[in-house]
Amino acid sequence: MKEKFSVTEKTEITRLPKRGHYDKEAVYSILDEALFGTLAYVREGQPFQIPTGFARLGNKLYIHGSVGSFYMRELRDKKHPVCISASLMDGLVLARSAFHHSVNYRSVVLFSEPHLVTEEKELYQALEAFTEKLCPGRWADVRKPTQNEWKETMVLSFEITEASAKIRTGPPKDDEEDYELNVWAGILPLKIERQTPVADTDLKPGVALPGYLNFHH
Amino acid sequence: MKEKFSVTEKTEITRLPKRGHYDKEAVYSILDEALFGTLAYVREGQPFQIPTGFARLGNKLYIHGSVGSFYMRELRDKKHPVCISASLMDGLVLARSAFHHSVNYRSVVLFSEPHLVTEEKELYQALEAFTEKLCPGRWADVRKPTQNEWKETMVLSFEITEASAKIRTGPPKDDEEDYELNVWAGILPLKIERQTPVADTDLKPGVALPGYLNFHH
Repeated sequence: MKEKFSVTEKTEITRLPKRGHYDKEAVYSILDEALFGTLAYVREGQPFQIPTGFARLGNKLYIHGSVGSFYMRELRDKKHPVCISASLMDGLVLARSAFHHSVNYRSVVLFSEPHLVTEEKELYQALEAFTEKLCPGRWADVRKPTQNEWKETMVLSFEITEASAKIRTGPPKDDEEDYELNVWAGILPLKIERQTPVADTDLKPGVALPGYLNFHH
Repeated sequence: MKEKFSVTEKTEITRLPKRGHYDKEAVYSILDEALFGTLAYVREGQPFQIPTGFARLGNKLYIHGSVGSFYMRELRDKKHPVCISASLMDGLVLARSAFHHSVNYRSVVLFSEPHLVTEEKELYQALEAFTEKLCPGRWADVRKPTQNEWKETMVLSFEITEASAKIRTGPPKDDEEDYELNVWAGILPLKIERQTPVADTDLKPGVALPGYLNFHH
């Protein structure tokens, strides 16, 4: 039996409901694969959005920023309710008719509120998770944060209380009579590719590309 | 002299202001390259986000959806103020210290409000723009919308009234003393790749892959 998030008025997928998924496994896997997302909150009745990296540990999502950042301080101090989304675009769905063109995607929308992380162990785990998510193997290799750097970094956590995923997969669905048209149809897959690393021009002579970045050999 | 958006309280980049750009050329080029974005609005004090495709024509941004879509109707009827964002992630910035890790990105955040598009020519141009943005060359090839399909489609326009771009480029910036560390540093470029098209299993025999999709030869 899959563990699920409760379906609420905010998270229920009403348009094309068969694309809706509420099990934690689906939500977590999308959040873990998406390197970036957007955080929305409301200031004086006006919606704002922050594009941001994030990491998930257990049922919490973490973001980090400078203690000097206006929105980080605002979220910390006012505990605005937030909506966070992340999307993976898997392919363009090219139908025979313009109308039935679509996109294969996996997206998550979740609702929560910010909490300032103050516990040292949780802070450390969150920062390690940010680095390892972007570049697995990196954390063990680099200089760790100093006391001053810790003080300059703010980490906020968001308990994933309400969440749903929306997923489209598979081929185009055309109208019956359109299958006879002489129009090519299918999927154009999209993929975020990690390309060949480019060394800093100030790289210390003799320092080799580490194995965890050498995925093009 | 570049044409610029006015800097407002909502769009001013206060954190790392040198990353802020307000000229229309920068904003437009990011909106045109990003295939997808997110739209945020406020319902009863709560922020909501919709991941969505979009297209730009002149100083207007367009989204489309079904006339049966709850949020499309809500935007049409209540004319909620919206915040729309789109981000291009160009690379991971791998510094020698965990603290100075960053991301090379180009993002736009803009503020506007929805207007229902009713004029036939504008509707047609917007739908063509959606299709051509995802897949240049496609519109001329496919079956065009019927009267009924037009009636099922809602297009909303958003005048780009307040907008700013935020851009980071270039190598990592480490602390002076860290350049002596034996740690590899540089950029890991990220790119959304269009992979080899996959034909629909129900493709009519004899229909060849069109030239505009044959970019892997």
